[in-house]
Amino acid sequence: MEKQENNSNNSENEENNNSEGLEALLNNAKWTDSQLEEVIRLIYGKRCPQLSLSNDLLEASMGSGFEIKGFQIKALEEQCRRPRNVRVAAIQNKIVLPTSAPIIQQREAIHQRVGIMIDIAARAGAQIICLQEAWPMPFAFCTRERLPWTEFAESAEDGPSTKFLSSLAKKHGIVIVSPILEREENKDGLIWNTAVIISHTGTIIGKTRKNHIPRVGDFNESTYYMESLLGHPVFETAFGKIAVNICYGRHHPQNWLMYALNGAEIIFNPSATISGLSEALWPIEARNAAIANSVFTVAINRVGTETFPNEFTSGNGKPAHKDFGHFYGSSYVAAPDGSRTPGLPRNKEGVLVVEIDLNLCRQTQDSWGFKMTQRLELYAQSLTNYTKPGYKPQIVKEK
Amino acid sequence: MEKQENNSNNSENEENNNSEGLEALLNNAKWTDSQLEEVIRLIYGKRCPQLSLSNDLLEASMGSGFEIKGFQIKALEEQCRRPRNVRVAAIQNKIVLPTSAPIIQQREAIHQRVGIMIDIAARAGAQIICLQEAWPMPFAFCTRERLPWTEFAESAEDGPSTKFLSSLAKKHGIVIVSPILEREENKDGLIWNTAVIISHTGTIIGKTRKNHIPRVGDFNESTYYMESLLGHPVFETAFGKIAVNICYGRHHPQNWLMYALNGAEIIFNPSATISGLSEALWPIEARNAAIANSVFTVAINRVGTETFPNEFTSGNGKPAHKDFGHFYGSSYVAAPDGSRTPGLPRNKEGVLVVEIDLNLCRQTQDSWGFKMTQRLELYAQSLTNYTKPGYKPQIVKEK
Repeated sequence: MEKQENNSNNSENEENNNSEGLEALLNNAKWTDSQLEEVIRLIYGKRCPQLSLSNDLLEASMGSGFEIKGFQIKALEEQCRRPRNVRVAAIQNKIVLPTSAPIIQQREAIHQRVGIMIDIAARAGAQIICLQEAWPMPFAFCTRERLPWTEFAESAEDGPSTKFLSSLAKKHGIVIVSPILEREENKDGLIWNTAVIISHTGTIIGKTRKNHIPRVGDFNESTYYMESLLGHPVFETAFGKIAVNICYGRHHPQNWLMYALNGAEIIFNPSATISGLSEALWPIEARNAAIANSVFTVAINRVGTETFPNEFTSGNGKPAHKDFGHFYGSSYVAAPDGSRTPGLPRNKEGVLVVEIDLNLCRQTQDSWGFKMTQRLELYAQSLTNYTKPGYKPQIVKEK
Repeated sequence: MEKQENNSNNSENEENNNSEGLEALLNNAKWTDSQLEEVIRLIYGKRCPQLSLSNDLLEASMGSGFEIKGFQIKALEEQCRRPRNVRVAAIQNKIVLPTSAPIIQQREAIHQRVGIMIDIAARAGAQIICLQEAWPMPFAFCTRERLPWTEFAESAEDGPSTKFLSSLAKKHGIVIVSPILEREENKDGLIWNTAVIISHTGTIIGKTRKNHIPRVGDFNESTYYMESLLGHPVFETAFGKIAVNICYGRHHPQNWLMYALNGAEIIFNPSATISGLSEALWPIEARNAAIANSVFTVAINRVGTETFPNEFTSGNGKPAHKDFGHFYGSSYVAAPDGSRTPGLPRNKEGVLVVEIDLNLCRQTQDSWGFKMTQRLELYAQSLTNYTKPGYKPQIVKEK
């Protein structure tokens, strides 16, 4: 039951926080080789070949205290198109300083940390890197306090995080998706949950905003910002057409659908979500979106426990507490054919680099035919009818 | 890659066909108790308590050569509503006689077999039982031959399968969902893929039809029948409001959505699908639908390999063959909170009885707020725009 397990931050099972995740447990299971292959097939759809990463890279990431994993997801060869291999990377990280440190120092410490991870991802060949939701800050919306947390909001166009990443994007010739808390300086100073898409040239291609805002447990985000009015933009980058479905938007199949209908072949889902709340949903939703829409999806979650100076309650009758619970990482990439990569750990920072062949999108679409058979004209009409006052549900009773 | 693995009926890995499934492998893994609990939490969302089944029932099912499994999915107690516990059952079975036997004998043999399984499910307390797609026949659509297979089509109102199940429904006081190949006698003799909803009184509450028809691999169904024109009806039974999303409709999130918007609290997904094609998708789609719509879903797949008298090809360049591949069973129930039961085996007939508390639907909806935040008016408009000629995707390019 959701309510029972909800917001159990302050009473959470320690073991769960320490659990490294499914991948480590499967490796410890003492199966025969063929049993392990069958488990991998049943859990991940198929085994993704590992990407060969140099010892230098493995040592550099180990030395910096995070894990790097690499996989490949291949497509068939075609006659009229060459393979369109792209290396995408997901970065999951912890905050660095305590939340009581000065705002600018907190942000700069995260910049420095994530900068190292981006450098290593780029050395591993990553061409499009997506960071976690609101990456330059702790996820402070649980507190419902305005100051100092709203000071983390920054301009999407020329704020410190955009400037920092623009230089890295240009240096490495890579696209970076940067989810931040945005202050819209030239429009009433409103705050938004925004992702900035930075080109491999270092310029900004555009921005997109969170379409669905949670009002659940410690996710008091609608206290700070409202739902996006920017629609479902897709960004044409040097390495492919991408979209960004921010966090809670992954619960909404129609949100994924519209990004795909606008032409996205990769949809990133930068998130911040905790154990005891959403973990049963995590392996399902982004993978279902990849299947339903014949696209690649990249699900990214932050990791670690964030503690705040003042106590707050969770709207669940439990005593006040100061921590937001355990962000369980577990970032992964899902493919249109229903397969997925193993995840990053639940309890460690990490970089996941996956080489995907975008040709798999159209190949799967042509093979399964979901788009051809999805009858959108029927649902356009049904939803239009449903949203009118006085809608009568189609209910059949025994005569 | 879909195409590579698609329709591999005639070259399928024998080991996969013999594999009993994930549950058996997890039980053989030699983990510590706490490791096993963590694996179950990560794979199933939580551990569902087992339903206590009498030795009589266990022996009866074992004696009849099928497995019976029982689980509970509980909700919180409420002050203003009593628990609304309902026992639902999924039945997965093989055909009985060779496909070369006379049609009526084939059907009667399946009737007899499934009758035994229904009796045992009812003795286990099942109140709503759903059978697999086109249960009184082999899944012969792979052949593209008309005769004799279209002879399996029968009247939804008074065909032999409806009559057979009506008497069982009345005898046990249970609701039965009966997915059949329908011959619409009074409308041009058209054929449909239909589910008949039979009341606990033995009368027919109504019928619903398959909304999305596959055109993939050996699933040549659009050769025989077209998409339903009956919309998304929900049936008010003595034990709850139910809907039926037949087979390939599970790939379409909007299909599940409309059943839920019309008030369904349980959506059955009677299916017929094979290893090498859809198995990576199977654990994901019905479970995602339960999450996204705050409903229970019941995914049911037939089991076994069906061989036909004449060879046929699969549209994949491979040699002609006579079998449809291995139907992998693996039926399961998913809950609105994202958890699910373990599945029935991949390679054995089985009855899955699950006691669910329907109160979990509204509790989860209130807790997560997905319905409140799903912005259907936005998507009604977006889909309407999309389906008009000349739609311009929202694409942003570097300036």
